[in-house]
Amino acid sequence: MWIQREVTLRPRPRGFHLVTDEVVSGVPELRDVRVGLAHLFIRHTSASLTLNENASPDVRDDFEAWFDAAVPEDAPYWTHTIEGPDDMPAHIKASVLGPALTIPVRAGRLALGTWQGVYLCEHRDRGGPRSVVVTVVGES
Amino acid sequence: MWIQREVTLRPRPRGFHLVTDEVVSGVPELRDVRVGLAHLFIRHTSASLTLNENASPDVRDDFEAWFDAAVPEDAPYWTHTIEGPDDMPAHIKASVLGPALTIPVRAGRLALGTWQGVYLCEHRDRGGPRSVVVTVVGES
Amino acid sequence: MWIQREVTLRPRPRGFHLVTDEVVSGVPELRDVRVGLAHLFIRHTSASLTLNENASPDVRDDFEAWFDAAVPEDAPYWTHTIEGPDDMPAHIKASVLGPALTIPVRAGRLALGTWQGVYLCEHRDRGGPRSVVVTVVGES
Repeated sequence: MWIQREVTLRPRPRGFHLVTDEVVSGVPELRDVRVGLAHLFIRHTSASLTLNENASPDVRDDFEAWFDAAVPEDAPYWTHTIEGPDDMPAHIKASVLGPALTIPVRAGRLALGTWQGVYLCEHRDRGGPRSVVVTVVGES
Repeated sequence: MWIQREVTLRPRPRGFHLVTDEVVSGVPELRDVRVGLAHLFIRHTSASLTLNENASPDVRDDFEAWFDAAVPEDAPYWTHTIEGPDDMPAHIKASVLGPALTIPVRAGRLALGTWQGVYLCEHRDRGGPRSVVVTVVGES
Repeated sequence: MWIQREVTLRPRPRGFHLVTDEVVSGVPELRDVRVGLAHLFIRHTSASLTLNENASPDVRDDFEAWFDAAVPEDAPYWTHTIEGPDDMPAHIKASVLGPALTIPVRAGRLALGTWQGVYLCEHRDRGGPRSVVVTVVGES
């Protein structure tokens, strides 16, 4: 059993955003999968997906603070600066966090831990809508 | 052919720990898979999984040293400090390394390179037992 | 439908290299997959795979600059130095970027975004040839 759908996430400001419900509601067939895997794939090079704490908004603020400190916009070594100061750091952050998540499916649901939620990591100041391909494979 | 099992890793101190055998022995059906994929997924937001050098323990010590330097506990920008100084750095490290590994299966075994082993990356001082969902899909 | 092939990437200098075509041409059966997943797995602990911008070579140069600054060869905390100053940083970079990519397959092609390409991330000064196991599962 294969399901593949493209979900468009509405534009968000730069930062880390909890999008679990938005992604899951785009794949209603998930509820028919008894055991399987769900693969979420963002088709961009300046945004990424990760799993992290789904409760406190200050965790997501601290993600932005750490990534901005770790990948500074004004570093002397950037040469690819034509698309603005947020562009090259966005590429680095996108690869450090990665473009995809694979999550086990069990009894029609993502088998996430209690505290795990899906983050859209928007690394551009104005990234626009973001396209996520969701592929589910499993047994009904 | 689908296999899905939950493996509980015993508590470990903060640091990087080789757990390949512990994970593989939790999924004995793996030996019947001719070709496939094995997906390891940790259901936590302050621990992670990675693959790296399976021989020298000092490699794992140096992982801890680098991550502690890269994600300092006393950074001025942390706001989510209610769960202790090791908490927010643990969340960041968990996402930088990621919660999951997908490994090819060939002839009943993980098709790891000679030097590759599965690390449990324990980012909390006292993380407790850690739950890993192992999902294997393949052909027998 | 399962396809599994081992692709050997020719030796490259330290840095980030676009290898999408080299990997895809090693798996000609991909064109018969209507919907599925492709999994790329590098069997090494000092090289990695990522997706990023497939156009400007200066993006790849800036990746090398950032990773060299973030994981310095002369850090005082390295203890695993027996294999040279580029070895331990290579292990760290390999895990930060990760050994594997999973990419959706649609209508016989990798469903990459317009700007996404596969990077071989070579973290050693002289890494030699690199082995990538490509596993494709899907429906024809």
